[in-house]
Amino acid sequence: MDSISIIAVVSIITAGLTTGIGCMFPALSEGKALATALTSIAQQPDAAPTITRTLFVGLAMIESTAIYCFVVSMILIFANPFWNFIIK
Amino acid sequence: MDSISIIAVVSIITAGLTTGIGCMFPALSEGKALATALTSIAQQPDAAPTITRTLFVGLAMIESTAIYCFVVSMILIFANPFWNFIIK
Amino acid sequence: MDSISIIAVVSIITAGLTTGIGCMFPALSEGKALATALTSIAQQPDAAPTITRTLFVGLAMIESTAIYCFVVSMILIFANPFWNFIIK
Amino acid sequence: MDSISIIAVVSIITAGLTTGIGCMFPALSEGKALATALTSIAQQPDAAPTITRTLFVGLAMIESTAIYCFVVSMILIFANPFWNFIIK
Amino acid sequence: MDSISIIAVVSIITAGLTTGIGCMFPALSEGKALATALTSIAQQPDAAPTITRTLFVGLAMIESTAIYCFVVSMILIFANPFWNFIIK
Amino acid sequence: MDSISIIAVVSIITAGLTTGIGCMFPALSEGKALATALTSIAQQPDAAPTITRTLFVGLAMIESTAIYCFVVSMILIFANPFWNFIIK
Amino acid sequence: MDSISIIAVVSIITAGLTTGIGCMFPALSEGKALATALTSIAQQPDAAPTITRTLFVGLAMIESTAIYCFVVSMILIFANPFWNFIIK
Amino acid sequence: MDSISIIAVVSIITAGLTTGIGCMFPALSEGKALATALTSIAQQPDAAPTITRTLFVGLAMIESTAIYCFVVSMILIFANPFWNFIIK
Amino acid sequence: MDSISIIAVVSIITAGLTTGIGCMFPALSEGKALATALTSIAQQPDAAPTITRTLFVGLAMIESTAIYCFVVSMILIFANPFWNFIIK
Amino acid sequence: MDSISIIAVVSIITAGLTTGIGCMFPALSEGKALATALTSIAQQPDAAPTITRTLFVGLAMIESTAIYCFVVSMILIFANPFWNFIIK
Amino acid sequence: MDSISIIAVVSIITAGLTTGIGCMFPALSEGKALATALTSIAQQPDAAPTITRTLFVGLAMIESTAIYCFVVSMILIFANPFWNFIIK
Amino acid sequence: MDSISIIAVVSIITAGLTTGIGCMFPALSEGKALATALTSIAQQPDAAPTITRTLFVGLAMIESTAIYCFVVSMILIFANPFWNFIIK
Amino acid sequence: MDSISIIAVVSIITAGLTTGIGCMFPALSEGKALATALTSIAQQPDAAPTITRTLFVGLAMIESTAIYCFVVSMILIFANPFWNFIIK
Amino acid sequence: MDSISIIAVVSIITAGLTTGIGCMFPALSEGKALATALTSIAQQPDAAPTITRTLFVGLAMIESTAIYCFVVSMILIFANPFWNFIIK
Repeated sequence: MDSISIIAVVSIITAGLTTGIGCMFPALSEGKALATALTSIAQQPDAAPTITRTLFVGLAMIESTAIYCFVVSMILIFANPFWNFIIK
Repeated sequence: MDSISIIAVVSIITAGLTTGIGCMFPALSEGKALATALTSIAQQPDAAPTITRTLFVGLAMIESTAIYCFVVSMILIFANPFWNFIIK
Repeated sequence: MDSISIIAVVSIITAGLTTGIGCMFPALSEGKALATALTSIAQQPDAAPTITRTLFVGLAMIESTAIYCFVVSMILIFANPFWNFIIK
Repeated sequence: MDSISIIAVVSIITAGLTTGIGCMFPALSEGKALATALTSIAQQPDAAPTITRTLFVGLAMIESTAIYCFVVSMILIFANPFWNFIIK
Repeated sequence: MDSISIIAVVSIITAGLTTGIGCMFPALSEGKALATALTSIAQQPDAAPTITRTLFVGLAMIESTAIYCFVVSMILIFANPFWNFIIK
Repeated sequence: MDSISIIAVVSIITAGLTTGIGCMFPALSEGKALATALTSIAQQPDAAPTITRTLFVGLAMIESTAIYCFVVSMILIFANPFWNFIIK
Repeated sequence: MDSISIIAVVSIITAGLTTGIGCMFPALSEGKALATALTSIAQQPDAAPTITRTLFVGLAMIESTAIYCFVVSMILIFANPFWNFIIK
Repeated sequence: MDSISIIAVVSIITAGLTTGIGCMFPALSEGKALATALTSIAQQPDAAPTITRTLFVGLAMIESTAIYCFVVSMILIFANPFWNFIIK
Repeated sequence: MDSISIIAVVSIITAGLTTGIGCMFPALSEGKALATALTSIAQQPDAAPTITRTLFVGLAMIESTAIYCFVVSMILIFANPFWNFIIK
Repeated sequence: MDSISIIAVVSIITAGLTTGIGCMFPALSEGKALATALTSIAQQPDAAPTITRTLFVGLAMIESTAIYCFVVSMILIFANPFWNFIIK
Repeated sequence: MDSISIIAVVSIITAGLTTGIGCMFPALSEGKALATALTSIAQQPDAAPTITRTLFVGLAMIESTAIYCFVVSMILIFANPFWNFIIK
Repeated sequence: MDSISIIAVVSIITAGLTTGIGCMFPALSEGKALATALTSIAQQPDAAPTITRTLFVGLAMIESTAIYCFVVSMILIFANPFWNFIIK
Repeated sequence: MDSISIIAVVSIITAGLTTGIGCMFPALSEGKALATALTSIAQQPDAAPTITRTLFVGLAMIESTAIYCFVVSMILIFANPFWNFIIK
Repeated sequence: MDSISIIAVVSIITAGLTTGIGCMFPALSEGKALATALTSIAQQPDAAPTITRTLFVGLAMIESTAIYCFVVSMILIFANPFWNFIIK
């Protein structure tokens, strides 16, 4: 395999795996946070606005780690400096 | 194997695995959130509307991580820049 | 092995694994959601209609992640762009 | 190994593994759902008809993921497009 | 190794593994369901007929996933289309 | 290695592993069912006959999955169609 | 390595592993059953004869899966049809 | 492969994996902290301001470990001293 | 490596592993049974003779699975039919 | 590959992995500590200052292990004695 | 490598691993038994002599499985029949 | 690769992994100890000075195992006897 | 590699791993026993002398399995019969 | 690679891994013991001196297993008999 192929190959694999792996645990902990939010609302309906607001701020923070991974994948597919260097 | 084959091969594998792996944990945590939602409704039937609404907003957020993975797979199958470069 | 074989081989493996792996966790969490639904009905028989309705909406959402995987498998077997390119 | 052999080999392995792996978790969660159903009946004998009906609908839905895998295996053994292409 | 050997070899391995792996989880969840059935009978002796009947219907459904795997193994040993093609 | 050896080797390994792996989980769940049976008898001595009868029917059903594996092993050792074909 | 050696080697490994692996879980579940038996006797001393009798019947049934594995090992060491065929 | 390719390849893989792996556990523990925060607010609504403030300080501290990993990835992609040395 | 060496090597490895692996779970479940025996004696000192007697019968039964493994190891070291055949 | 490349490659991989792996568990246990801190504040609002102070001292101590790993990564990237020796 | 070396090598590895692995679980279950013994003494100080006596008999029985492994290691190092055959 | 390179390579990898792995569990158990310390302070505010003092002594002891690993890494990077021998 | 090197290499690896692995579980179960001892003392301060005495006897017994592993390592480093045979 | 290099390499890896692995579980169980000590002090402040004293004796005993591993690493780095033999 020549250099162009190998870099293309590696970029594809890494992009896929980074998103695939990196989305696992954010999904898991969003599920967990959501679950406890629902339990808490059922337990203390009066605090629902506070709980919901804290929940969405927290979910956004967790989502950010998934987005870091998605960003790295997108960089590797569409703005990859190594690929740009090689194909020049 | 020539360059075209290898890139095709790698794209296929990565597309499959990214979706396969990336859908595992969203499914898991949607199940968990759904389960606690049901428990909460049984425990506090009066809060059912609030719980259901929060549930569906949260499920959509979790679903989004599965969709990131599906999007990466679709990009790799139908809009793959490395493949387009090679077959030119 | 020539290019045609290798792509056929890889498509077969990936199609099988994607469905095989991708159906594991949806099944698991449908089981979990179903289990808590049954517990909740036993605990609060009056809320059975609400619980059942929420359950089926949620199961459909979880099922959707299994269907993403099944769709990727079917695309790889019957509408594979790389295979179509190679056999031309 | 020539192309025919390799594709036959890969189809056999994938067909076996897809069913083998894909039946694990549906079985597991059917067992879980069944177990909670029995507990719920013991706890609330009056709700037995509702519980049983919800149980069987849910089991059918879980069984469907096992059937996706079985279908992929059967396609790979008896209606494999790659095999049909090669042996022509 | 010639083609006949390799296909025989792969069929043997896959047949064994599919049954070996595929029987693990059905056994596990039948055990679980049986265990909760016994607990439920001890807890609510009057509901024994309902519990026993639901148990056996459910066990049959779980057993079906083990039988899918056994069927795939038997097909691979005694009705393998790839083997039949090769030895002709 | 010639074909005869390789098929013999593979048959030996597969026969051993299928029984070895396939007996693990039935043993585990028989142990679990037995354990809960004992707990249930201690808790409700009057229901001992019902419990014992359900236990033995269930154990037989679990044992059946171990026997599937044992059957596959015996077929591979003493009635292996691939071996019979090769040594002819 | 010639055929005789390889078959001897494989038979040795498989015999060892089948017993080694196959005895793990029976031991585990015998321990579990024994433990609950002791708990149950302490909890309900009057039911000791029933518990002890059920325990020993169940242990014999679990032990049977360990014996399947031991039987396969002994067949592979002392009554191996493939070995007998090769050394003729 | 020449030196330039190999270093590019390795940088891509490492950048992807470092972010992918390094974001897993921060996400997990942010989810956990968020979940307990919600439980605590439901349990003690009066302490909501203190809890929320401690929560966000702590989340920032956890996020910092994810950012270490993201920083290492960015260094490897855009400010890699080994790459700069090689391409000179 | 000639045949004698390879068989010696394999016998050594298998003998070691069979004992090493096969003693793990018996030890584990003896520990578990012993632990519950101690708990039970503390809870019901009057039943100590019955508990102790059942404990030692059960420990002997668990020990038997460890002894199967030790027997296989000793057969492989000191009464190995394949080794005897080869060195003749 | 020549010596310069291989050392560069290995330094990149190790730097990435050390940070990636080494940040996992500090993140995990900071999350755990933070979670219990929040629970404790909710349970005993009067002790909030003591809890918060102990929490931040402890978090700093845990963070220190993540920093050891980050330091090793930075040494390997920017102050690597082996690299300096080789490129001279 | 000649035969003498390879057998020496394998004996060393196997001896080390057998003891290393084989001591893991006895240690674990001795710890467990000891822990419950201490709990039981604290709970029922009057039964301390019975508990202590049963504990030491049981620990000896568990220790025996560790000693089987140590014996196999010592046989492999100092009384290895395969080594004695080869160096003659 | 010549000797100098290989030793440099191995030292880099080992240094990284030793710190990376060796910091995992100290971090984990510091987190656990810190968490229980916070719970204990909330539960018994009067014992805060004793708890805090014991906590910091214990944390120092746990930190010592992380420092052993860091020391080994530093020795391998900056005071490696094998490296010093080779480059002479 | 000649025989001397390979035996030296293998002895080093095995010595390290045997101690490394073999010390894991004794440490774990000493920690567990110690933890329950502390709980028991807090729960029943009057039984402290009995508990402490039983604890130290038990710890010595657990420590013995760690020492078996350390002994095997020391034999492999300083009194290795295979090494002595080879260097003669 | 010549003998000197390979032995140096292996010594470095083994030294690193032995300390890295061997420090994991002592750290873990020191954390556990410390945690229960803190809980016990909070629960029974009067027994603090006894608990603290038992804790530190026990921690020293656990630390000893970590020190065995550190000792083996130091022997392999600075007093390695195989290395001394080779470089002579």
